[in-house]
Amino acid sequence: MAPQKDKILKLPTIQRLPNYLHIAKTLKDNGEENVSTTYLANKIGLDSIVVRKDLAVTGVNGRPGVGYNSENLIDAIESFLGWDKISDAFVIGTGCLGSALLGHNGFAAHGLNVIAGFDNDPNKINTEVAGKKIFQMEKLADLTVRMRVKLGILCVPAEHAQETTDKMIDAGITGIWNFTPVNIEVPENVITHQQDLASGLAVLSLKLSKKMTRV
Amino acid sequence: MAPQKDKILKLPTIQRLPNYLHIAKTLKDNGEENVSTTYLANKIGLDSIVVRKDLAVTGVNGRPGVGYNSENLIDAIESFLGWDKISDAFVIGTGCLGSALLGHNGFAAHGLNVIAGFDNDPNKINTEVAGKKIFQMEKLADLTVRMRVKLGILCVPAEHAQETTDKMIDAGITGIWNFTPVNIEVPENVITHQQDLASGLAVLSLKLSKKMTRV
Repeated sequence: MAPQKDKILKLPTIQRLPNYLHIAKTLKDNGEENVSTTYLANKIGLDSIVVRKDLAVTGVNGRPGVGYNSENLIDAIESFLGWDKISDAFVIGTGCLGSALLGHNGFAAHGLNVIAGFDNDPNKINTEVAGKKIFQMEKLADLTVRMRVKLGILCVPAEHAQETTDKMIDAGITGIWNFTPVNIEVPENVITHQQDLASGLAVLSLKLSKKMTRV
Repeated sequence: MAPQKDKILKLPTIQRLPNYLHIAKTLKDNGEENVSTTYLANKIGLDSIVVRKDLAVTGVNGRPGVGYNSENLIDAIESFLGWDKISDAFVIGTGCLGSALLGHNGFAAHGLNVIAGFDNDPNKINTEVAGKKIFQMEKLADLTVRMRVKLGILCVPAEHAQETTDKMIDAGITGIWNFTPVNIEVPENVITHQQDLASGLAVLSLKLSKKMTRV
């Protein structure tokens, strides 16, 4: 069965896919050949029907009473998300968060290869973070073209977010993973996704203040 | 108008509130007294009706043709999210990501005061990251009680996530912001929120592979 590209994809479904993937990989590492919908549903705290719907978007086939073959499930999710094709990325802004992302070893498993950092601070230029070199911002355009990088991870302070975005786009970056709280403006051909840590904190704060029990 | 606590809160609404807050604060800093629904809608790339519905949960009142008073809007969002009451938190696991969170200066504005880190690595004990002391894990229970900390930010490697969670709960932590990819198991009285960076990467990957244009 081919992935159902025509189906309307829901954001929560996509956000849960890495979760299913992690569970399937853990089971496979433990020698489990199959994974049942019930097991996945219990692990994630959702109804089995939701799990089945979620996984249907990847085109994977389950068998009644058996569940999914762990390896098929892993392949289906990774190929659906495009994580089986490694792509390279630059980190722009190597403060605390940018440095953490340079050193984060969880991205490679998802097809993301962070290869270098860029910064304005003269003290950082030509140093390394987690074995990855930090270049001056002026070199971004040249290296983006030479290394054929399309993806930039934006980690600069909020007040520099838009001007840095403009520089990234001028350099030829067409996908921006935005870790700033700023709603950056980009032309139509540039894809962005905002990863605002404050959004997560908002959900947690509300849960803690007991205004909601489940979101 | 009191916050409409009875309304069903939608996750995307809550996740957008910090976004509105950021825009309102920027406008207020620039001397703008009011902010229109249209302006907010354009900035975030949503319909005005969605913006109005989102903000209604906070209980703020807008005026036709004028919009919201920037200061009222800021107060309403911060008070709704509980960000006007500072709460203290520990970072558990001070690798790359944990260190970044210790040094992240954006949390204080949201009522989160990260006061110390905990780690197992003897080389890190009693050092400081961003002016915050790193303690050994064995001290967690004692310090949680003495400093009345309820919130822990979990940043350990995936393979230690559950055992560390158990230690945090034994120590008296009742809210866990989980930065690992693991679905940690907690008793009913403990609140958790998972901040999996892979979820954001999943959304971005799909956008980039043109399977979706908007989520």
